[in-house]
Amino acid sequence: MTAESAGVSSVDVRVRYAETDQMGVAHHANYLVWCEVGRTHHMEQLGVRYRDLEARGVRLPVVAAALRYRAAARYDDVLEVRCWVRNAGSRSVEFGNAIVRNEDGANLATATITLIAVDSRHATTRIPDDIRALMVPVPDPVRL
Amino acid sequence: MTAESAGVSSVDVRVRYAETDQMGVAHHANYLVWCEVGRTHHMEQLGVRYRDLEARGVRLPVVAAALRYRAAARYDDVLEVRCWVRNAGSRSVEFGNAIVRNEDGANLATATITLIAVDSRHATTRIPDDIRALMVPVPDPVRL
Amino acid sequence: MTAESAGVSSVDVRVRYAETDQMGVAHHANYLVWCEVGRTHHMEQLGVRYRDLEARGVRLPVVAAALRYRAAARYDDVLEVRCWVRNAGSRSVEFGNAIVRNEDGANLATATITLIAVDSRHATTRIPDDIRALMVPVPDPVRL
Amino acid sequence: MTAESAGVSSVDVRVRYAETDQMGVAHHANYLVWCEVGRTHHMEQLGVRYRDLEARGVRLPVVAAALRYRAAARYDDVLEVRCWVRNAGSRSVEFGNAIVRNEDGANLATATITLIAVDSRHATTRIPDDIRALMVPVPDPVRL
Repeated sequence: MTAESAGVSSVDVRVRYAETDQMGVAHHANYLVWCEVGRTHHMEQLGVRYRDLEARGVRLPVVAAALRYRAAARYDDVLEVRCWVRNAGSRSVEFGNAIVRNEDGANLATATITLIAVDSRHATTRIPDDIRALMVPVPDPVRL
Repeated sequence: MTAESAGVSSVDVRVRYAETDQMGVAHHANYLVWCEVGRTHHMEQLGVRYRDLEARGVRLPVVAAALRYRAAARYDDVLEVRCWVRNAGSRSVEFGNAIVRNEDGANLATATITLIAVDSRHATTRIPDDIRALMVPVPDPVRL
Repeated sequence: MTAESAGVSSVDVRVRYAETDQMGVAHHANYLVWCEVGRTHHMEQLGVRYRDLEARGVRLPVVAAALRYRAAARYDDVLEVRCWVRNAGSRSVEFGNAIVRNEDGANLATATITLIAVDSRHATTRIPDDIRALMVPVPDPVRL
Repeated sequence: MTAESAGVSSVDVRVRYAETDQMGVAHHANYLVWCEVGRTHHMEQLGVRYRDLEARGVRLPVVAAALRYRAAARYDDVLEVRCWVRNAGSRSVEFGNAIVRNEDGANLATATITLIAVDSRHATTRIPDDIRALMVPVPDPVRL
């Protein structure tokens, strides 16, 4: 797995003190937030800013998420959040994520996140064609 | 200081695991969230639900906050969030808060939070008269 | 699905303003936190406080989570977090969760959360026998 | 105010979707987290990593915080978190922070955060001399 794989983006986050819990590691809920940071970055790399998508009246709420936690992230660790498109339909898109520790390349966690398109009244809608065209699935670069 | 003081409301929160940090205590940013829980409850006790206020197009963003942390809250502690109005003007209101540990009555933290009224375009506006009339300041029930 | 099913616990949370996002609904990461609130409560109902378990040197980090989001929770909604044991082994336990809106009984989200037992050095360990004995799986009270 | 002022450090954070609330702006509690990110970075620039300080048995819990919110931060905004030492004593240190929007240099918020040194039993202790020597106060680069 290399960060430079076609269709796989990578953005760094550094574990914040507020993200740790009394177990001395990053709390597991933060991984969903980091995956979201990865999606924002991935879409931007594809040429669409999520904020612009919302300005066009299209929102992408999460409808499913599955995460596997393999090793703990600790305060101040620099993590590479990798993101790619796994599947794309007319009204939904599934992203894959891997959270990799920068220092040693350890694969700390993987996730799949499914989103659907809704309009401003929260009704399901189609992903605009120009956005849909950018959502080209790639093979998983890592086992999920 | 008694929870039953006129004009002082009280609502319980229980410290969540996700709210702890690796110091083994509740992270200090959560106190602002708990104060917000206290304000929502306090306004409801006064007869106005904040969600209804927003539905009328008035929002109350925080413009200033001052907190003193006196002792740590721990996972699973039940905390009493006390709230009262300290000052109220035509466009702003200042709340006082005390976070008290249920088990022993220890005063863990105090805060003052100042909010202003804004309309849906984020411009300063007047607090509606019926709401304003409910915002009657009371003396601080505890030293801040 | 009734909250009173044997082996299914129920605890209320109220959606906090801080838990909403600019989509106007509760952010999806909070559901993992609410499931954790449900687990803490469920274990307490079973007769073991998680804080006491940690005091005995045993921790239960999350190793997998799968969530389905069916409808949105909104600010100030009262949610019933239901929790039950789905599977239990010598070193791991899987919980089921349903997040139900109090007002109309709508099933907003479901989740399965898997935890393993680790000791203070983060090495896998056995769940103490007295705790293990309490972890009796029950059939899912709702489709996950 | 320039980021290059002697004794004033600067680190970027980008507003996360999870950090917004239904007002459409970053929730006010996040500013405490961003200030903490700024402190971690500031101390690192001074030559001490907070994680190493904890490894030496010294922790720096927050005992007071005062924030003024001047303008809202929005999703995806890049913010510059500026940090400096305002006062330093044998057992406490006060930091100043300014949160500046990168795009236009707007000063969104300012804060002062006071920390005390405690040992592993949460008893007040002295800041180690080598750390104390690094905590040289500088004049506020901006009005707080």
